[in-house]
Amino acid sequence: MRKAMAAAPATVANVSCGFDVLGFALEHPVDEVEVRWSTKKGVTIVAIEGDGGKLPLDPTRNTAGIAAQAMLRVARVAQGIDLYLKKGVPVSGGMGSSAASAVASVVALQMLLGTEYTTSELLTFAAQGEAVTSGTPHLDNVTPSLLGGFTAVRSTEPVDVFNIPYPHELMCTVVHPQVTVDTRRAREMLPKTLPLSTAVSQWGNVAGLVTALSTGDYDLLQRSFHDAVAEPTRKALIPGFDQVKEAALTAGALGCSISGSGPSMFALSSTKEIAERVGTAMQAAFLQVEQNSTIYITPISPHGCQRIS
Amino acid sequence: MRKAMAAAPATVANVSCGFDVLGFALEHPVDEVEVRWSTKKGVTIVAIEGDGGKLPLDPTRNTAGIAAQAMLRVARVAQGIDLYLKKGVPVSGGMGSSAASAVASVVALQMLLGTEYTTSELLTFAAQGEAVTSGTPHLDNVTPSLLGGFTAVRSTEPVDVFNIPYPHELMCTVVHPQVTVDTRRAREMLPKTLPLSTAVSQWGNVAGLVTALSTGDYDLLQRSFHDAVAEPTRKALIPGFDQVKEAALTAGALGCSISGSGPSMFALSSTKEIAERVGTAMQAAFLQVEQNSTIYITPISPHGCQRIS
Repeated sequence: MRKAMAAAPATVANVSCGFDVLGFALEHPVDEVEVRWSTKKGVTIVAIEGDGGKLPLDPTRNTAGIAAQAMLRVARVAQGIDLYLKKGVPVSGGMGSSAASAVASVVALQMLLGTEYTTSELLTFAAQGEAVTSGTPHLDNVTPSLLGGFTAVRSTEPVDVFNIPYPHELMCTVVHPQVTVDTRRAREMLPKTLPLSTAVSQWGNVAGLVTALSTGDYDLLQRSFHDAVAEPTRKALIPGFDQVKEAALTAGALGCSISGSGPSMFALSSTKEIAERVGTAMQAAFLQVEQNSTIYITPISPHGCQRIS
Repeated sequence: MRKAMAAAPATVANVSCGFDVLGFALEHPVDEVEVRWSTKKGVTIVAIEGDGGKLPLDPTRNTAGIAAQAMLRVARVAQGIDLYLKKGVPVSGGMGSSAASAVASVVALQMLLGTEYTTSELLTFAAQGEAVTSGTPHLDNVTPSLLGGFTAVRSTEPVDVFNIPYPHELMCTVVHPQVTVDTRRAREMLPKTLPLSTAVSQWGNVAGLVTALSTGDYDLLQRSFHDAVAEPTRKALIPGFDQVKEAALTAGALGCSISGSGPSMFALSSTKEIAERVGTAMQAAFLQVEQNSTIYITPISPHGCQRIS
C-alpha cells in the first residue's frame, strides 16, 4: 500500500454525570488524515487544511504527529511517513478535535503498515497525542472517536473501554460559541475531592443514564442528566451557560451540558425536529450574551473512525 | 377485608461499586407479615416468630411496627391493627432484615386498608422503619425488597428508583457468618470525602456493571465488580474477608463483595452449579478463621414483595 486515509469523528466527552467516563461519537464533523511512505525518516506533517493556521506542523507538538510517532516506534519501521491533515472538527471547541486527529492518524497509519493493532493499542497511541492538549492522556474522546456509539472508559491503566447500547434515533445538537476555553485550566478548576454524598448521587445518576440509554427510557434519561462535579465550576467559563441550558430544555431537549471541557454545549433530543428547534433556541440564547456560535445537528455515529482508502 | 398477609424477600444492597445505589432481591429467605383489624388503637405487635427473641415487640422500636404506624398516620384510620411477624431473614446479617419486615408490613397493611399507594409512598413508609437500625432512612434495601430484580436508587429526596435489566439465569450465593456487625458503626467507618480520581473510577465501574447486567456481558461484569469505597474499610469487620472472597472467585464466581454492611458476603455466578461450588468454597474459607456460617443459594427474585392473601 502506497497511501492510506481515515476519517475520525468529533465527540462529546464528560457526558453530564459521566465525567471522565462517558462519551459519544458524532456523525460529523470529521477530521481526515492521509499518510504516505516518505523518503524522510520519522513523521513529516506536510500540510494541515481547515484549521485556520492554528495547529503546528511540528509532529512533536501536533496530536496527529505524536500519535503516528508512537505507533511507528512500536512498529519498529525504519521508513518515515508524510502526513496530511484535513480538519473538520473545530480546534479548542470541546468537541474532541485533538482526539479526532489522533484517531484518524493511527487508523490510517495501521492501514499503511498493514498491521492490525488491538483497540487498546490504538487508543494508547491516540491518547499520547491527546495528552498534548489536556496535560495527561485521557481516553474519553479517543474512545468514542475510534469505536463510535456511546462509550465508557472503565479504566485507563490498563485500558478498559466498552460500548453502551443506546436508542439510535437520539439526535445531538452541539452549539460552539466563539469563546476559548483552556483545557488545562478547565481541569484545574475541578474539585480535588468530593463529599461521599455527592459522589453517591453522581454514580446514582450514572446508573440511571446507562439504564436509560440501554432501555430507551427517556424519562429516566432526563432525570439522570445531572452533573454535580464538573458543570457547577466549569460553567463559569461559558458566557450565558445557564440561559443556554434553560433554552435547550425549554425547547424540548432531554438533557444539556458542557461538551468535553467546553466551550461547546450539547443537547440530546428524541427527534431531528426537536434537535433543530433546540439548536435555534441555544444559538439565540448565546446571542443574548453577544456570543456568535456554530451549530451541529447530527445523530450519534454508530461506527466511529472510518477507513477511507 | 379482615386480615392481609405479605412476604418480602431478603436483599443485597451496596452491590460492589454501587454503594448506596445498587441492590437486588433474593428469592429466599423472606419475612412474612400478617395484619388484622384490632380493638386497640395504633399498631400492636402480637407476636414475632423466627427471630430467636432478638426483636422488640414495641412497635416504636420495631421496623415493621414503625412502617405500619407511618402508613396509618397518613391513611388517617382511627382503628388500630394487630401485626404478626414471621422472620425468615436473619437479623443483623446484612441481608436487609429490617427492610424485608418493613416492606412486608406496608404491603400487607395497604391490602387491609384497601388503598393503593404509589411505589414512592410505600418506600417512604418502609424506609422510616429501616431508619431504626441504620440511623438514617435508606432506600437501598427496601427498594429491591418491594420491586424485586436488580434496582438502583437515583435519589432519596425525592424518591427516584428504577429497575435495571439483568440476566435471569444469574445465581446469588450469600454466606452469613456468625459475627455481628453494627450497621451504624459500619457507616461511621466510611470515608467522608473521596479523591476525585477514586470517585471517577467508581462511577466507571458502575457504568460497566449496569451495562454488563443489561447486555449479559459477564466478562465486563467481572471487571466492573470492584468497590473502592466501602469494601476497603468495612472488610475489617469480617474475619477472613480476603480469603473468602478469593475462595469465591477461584471457585468461579463472577464477583464477590460485602452484602449490605455485612457481615454476610455474597457472590454472583452464572449457573446454579457454580453458585453451589462457590458457597462450599466460601463456607470452607470462613471455617479456616473459625467462623461457622449459613449459606443461601438463590436466583435474583424478579417479583419482590408478594401479597399472600
